[in-house]
Amino acid sequence: MNRLCTLALAAACVALSVPAAAQFAKTDDAVMYRQSAMFIMSQHFGRLGGMANGRVPYDAAAAVANAEVVAAMAKLPWPAFGTGMEGGKAKPDIWKEQAKFKENQDKLQAETVKLVAAAKAGNVEALKAQFGPTGGVCKACHDGFRKD
Amino acid sequence: MNRLCTLALAAACVALSVPAAAQFAKTDDAVMYRQSAMFIMSQHFGRLGGMANGRVPYDAAAAVANAEVVAAMAKLPWPAFGTGMEGGKAKPDIWKEQAKFKENQDKLQAETVKLVAAAKAGNVEALKAQFGPTGGVCKACHDGFRKD
Repeated sequence: MNRLCTLALAAACVALSVPAAAQFAKTDDAVMYRQSAMFIMSQHFGRLGGMANGRVPYDAAAAVANAEVVAAMAKLPWPAFGTGMEGGKAKPDIWKEQAKFKENQDKLQAETVKLVAAAKAGNVEALKAQFGPTGGVCKACHDGFRKD
Repeated sequence: MNRLCTLALAAACVALSVPAAAQFAKTDDAVMYRQSAMFIMSQHFGRLGGMANGRVPYDAAAAVANAEVVAAMAKLPWPAFGTGMEGGKAKPDIWKEQAKFKENQDKLQAETVKLVAAAKAGNVEALKAQFGPTGGVCKACHDGFRKD
């Protein structure tokens, strides 16, 4: 019985020591991970921008596909900004203003969900109307938390 | 009427000139894009490996979340291996053996769909059983098409 308790406790300790921060073997992995997600997001967001700005023809199916990748990527980077993962283009402010940084994450996720809905509306006007606000959230967070 | 035809033709030409290859402004973007998708995939696949190999406790919800990211990433890199996008760790064979490379892509996507199903089974044995075959597809493609 004691041995079972010890095993259970050991398992609990492992579980407690594993989450968010420990998802990455090293800080470089966390930096590359968040930069990778941001880069993929920027590529697909840029394609939506091309349609919204008339540089490329509007394609309803492509708009949905691109918006869905943007929304999927918007969920990923945050655990990679955990304790001790400073580096890359991330300003130290991220770790000093956690509440504000979290607010930016939530805004991005909310706007990208709306972006998918706008793409699914199937007309370029809906896409245009939501492209600006989404880009605004990207910019606000970069202005505050990304090094030039 | 002539003007309308000209406009329609111009639009069609733009549409024809835009697809897959032209999704990337430059080759460096394509290389970074495919490496980003592969890196994110490897991180989440590694977490599944931790569970499958008993290095971290099995967590059914985390397994599903990780498998879903792996499957989502498995869809992305391929347009970034378009004509003229040689570079990075990609062997020139990719552009010489298009059918074989495509076969590898299809296999990966099929195995990662099965990986999501295995994760959703909710037990570590199912995950273990599908982890190996999925990793095998990664390895086979890397052996053939990725530089050391």
